[in-house]
Amino acid sequence: MRIQHLDSSTKKNLLEDLLQRSPSSYGQYEQAVAEILNNVKIEKDKALFAYTEQFDHAHIDASNVRVTMEEIQAAYEEVGEELLRVIRGSLESIKSYHEKQRQFSWFDSKPDGTILGQKVTALQRVGVYVPGGKAAYPSSVLMNIVPARVAGVDEIIMVTPPGADGRVNANTLVAACEAGATAIYKVGGAQAIGALAYGTESIPKVDKIVGPGNIYVALAKKAVYGHVSIDAIAGPSEIMVVADETANPRYVAADLLSQAEHDEMASAILVTTSEKLAREVSDQIDGFLKELSRADIIQKSLDNYGYILIADTMDEVIDTANEIASEHLEIMTKNPYDTMTRIRNAGAIFIGEYASEPLGDYYAGPNHVLPTNGTAKFFSPLSVDDFIKKSSIIGYSREALERVHKDIEAFAEAEHLTAHANSIKVRFEENR
Amino acid sequence: MRIQHLDSSTKKNLLEDLLQRSPSSYGQYEQAVAEILNNVKIEKDKALFAYTEQFDHAHIDASNVRVTMEEIQAAYEEVGEELLRVIRGSLESIKSYHEKQRQFSWFDSKPDGTILGQKVTALQRVGVYVPGGKAAYPSSVLMNIVPARVAGVDEIIMVTPPGADGRVNANTLVAACEAGATAIYKVGGAQAIGALAYGTESIPKVDKIVGPGNIYVALAKKAVYGHVSIDAIAGPSEIMVVADETANPRYVAADLLSQAEHDEMASAILVTTSEKLAREVSDQIDGFLKELSRADIIQKSLDNYGYILIADTMDEVIDTANEIASEHLEIMTKNPYDTMTRIRNAGAIFIGEYASEPLGDYYAGPNHVLPTNGTAKFFSPLSVDDFIKKSSIIGYSREALERVHKDIEAFAEAEHLTAHANSIKVRFEENR
Repeated sequence: MRIQHLDSSTKKNLLEDLLQRSPSSYGQYEQAVAEILNNVKIEKDKALFAYTEQFDHAHIDASNVRVTMEEIQAAYEEVGEELLRVIRGSLESIKSYHEKQRQFSWFDSKPDGTILGQKVTALQRVGVYVPGGKAAYPSSVLMNIVPARVAGVDEIIMVTPPGADGRVNANTLVAACEAGATAIYKVGGAQAIGALAYGTESIPKVDKIVGPGNIYVALAKKAVYGHVSIDAIAGPSEIMVVADETANPRYVAADLLSQAEHDEMASAILVTTSEKLAREVSDQIDGFLKELSRADIIQKSLDNYGYILIADTMDEVIDTANEIASEHLEIMTKNPYDTMTRIRNAGAIFIGEYASEPLGDYYAGPNHVLPTNGTAKFFSPLSVDDFIKKSSIIGYSREALERVHKDIEAFAEAEHLTAHANSIKVRFEENR
Repeated sequence: MRIQHLDSSTKKNLLEDLLQRSPSSYGQYEQAVAEILNNVKIEKDKALFAYTEQFDHAHIDASNVRVTMEEIQAAYEEVGEELLRVIRGSLESIKSYHEKQRQFSWFDSKPDGTILGQKVTALQRVGVYVPGGKAAYPSSVLMNIVPARVAGVDEIIMVTPPGADGRVNANTLVAACEAGATAIYKVGGAQAIGALAYGTESIPKVDKIVGPGNIYVALAKKAVYGHVSIDAIAGPSEIMVVADETANPRYVAADLLSQAEHDEMASAILVTTSEKLAREVSDQIDGFLKELSRADIIQKSLDNYGYILIADTMDEVIDTANEIASEHLEIMTKNPYDTMTRIRNAGAIFIGEYASEPLGDYYAGPNHVLPTNGTAKFFSPLSVDDFIKKSSIIGYSREALERVHKDIEAFAEAEHLTAHANSIKVRFEENR
């Protein structure tokens, strides 16, 4: 794995490299996605099923688009008791963590009759996209459905592309059932996003669409944003490890590889003050690579977006971490909680040598749907917040309004909005 | 104003009418906006100033793009003490309300060494767009800047288009200064959004862009979403009044008109169980229209998107309110707080006959930047939430990881992610 000294030009090149992976540079697919969305909007089921035939090579129609109880029972048998127990253990942790994220309606009142507050309401119906094929991850199903469930969403509509045999991954089905999906439909790609955004005869329109997908899915979500809400647009996975000389090179190497195996666009970066650690991690990576089943993908990912960077000072390490704003950030330093206080931008922060990144993917409880590609500067992990919305509450008495009514009228008149001023004036006509 | 009986076909037509106003049906401007954004991204200041010349007819360059202290002082003199006092009173209420929205980092620990939590961090730099010309509203300046300030954002960069004389509205400048803008630049339109999203020699790149604007601004914000964050895309203003026979028709009429005066696309809807109220409100509207300065705009708005709907039951009234999900919802019923409990979708809910909508625009404290055009089903008012983001915190001890490590490995292997499993295994190699 390449080892470089961290200086401003290394950092600039690195940041530019990483941004290459952004979905916004895939303009060539936008036209195709717009056409798919428009056809599904107008032709509904007809277009949806035609695209499923075209892209997934599966014969899906109104009679078999929705996953049945029989299919779910068969999936439970296929999955088996051992994996079911593991899924349920993970689900328990995820629920417990997300329950702590719940927000509540509040109000503040004054004795003059003023009541101000916020009413928190769950979204009514949401759509969860789950990729099929090689990226059919039951853990992602849990991570997308649980926060919606905890928020109190009435209906959780899941979509996932079928195989050519018209079937859906058994692990996906069981995870969806355990997490609490209301209905599961066998459609995928941009056409599934269109169905969720506009509704078809078979699939109900939702208020928000969440879940990762390929570039077509990501662009389709972006295109329907505003008509419905969406979660952050997911990019390729990333890990950054911030380490000093106290870090265990074998653990650092294994954790870097755990993200590099996702796909060739994934990024794995170590930033350290220790040249010794840098070399040891590189050696450990070479050793592991011989044993891992996805070594080809990992090698390409490391060649493209893998870096070991040696910095002169811990300040430089921290600045780099904050500039890159990695999806996953592991801190393996002598005082990792101290280091954490200086991290401003990261999706999830893993602290200490036993908080390995896959612990967060599967089991600890925090969501593994995280902002990628620098967006941790302004986006948050998927959470209960994504499935609620707020309404302001404003109650005023005559007494409360009377005290400020002339100021409101003056402000409205300064903005030349006389009908605004009038609506306050009419309440006090007898005083004028 | 048209009076109709509320039935399913009235409601369907109404919902379709309102959706006509959505920014998503303005596809013809998208190409122009994409071109402006791309030129600003590549040519930076040069393109920015050329567009300012072209669209605003103002000569702006690097030497005068940033508003100076002298210009701000002149603005204070122009605004005068009386309006300044009103602005400060309003600012006080807005600050006080938004301070109650602050969210805090939290953690939950277990005696086995597990620490899970969320770290809340303010965004570092945000951009606030403020329209110029006839829509230069100092109240909007306060509403966009205060939540960023309360959240703890380091830098608040405001942009607003100059007049042909190169000057910016004095009320806007004073409001920005009072609210706490870090810097103010004289640029507007899609080109200003491009400057904030990508950065130019004069204007720094921001993490998030908020604030209302015309269709070019709205489309530009949508286009840069993902590269930076944005607030909800603002549509034309709306008011819905939910009323029974106890409502004061003069107040209802005045409040409907207060939103109709915004522009010809604004919508004002009364839904009531009282035919008598419906007729009286219509008469009152005719009376007011003779006196109001923006009567032409109001008349067009009412003709296009104004409705008085008579429902058979309060249940139908409530269902309609929830389906339309109005930006502003006034409740003027015998027991308005009872009615409020049944409202699921609305931007801001005004309760009782003294909670007139303009009270919320100017003075009460809750934000007047609200979800429009049905998006209150999934979006919230602008708030402190918009200017923070969260990072998950995951700390585990050897003891805590040891208890679950085999389950994590099993889950990773079920997803065929062997490097994920490996990163857990290496922590317990001596045990195997």
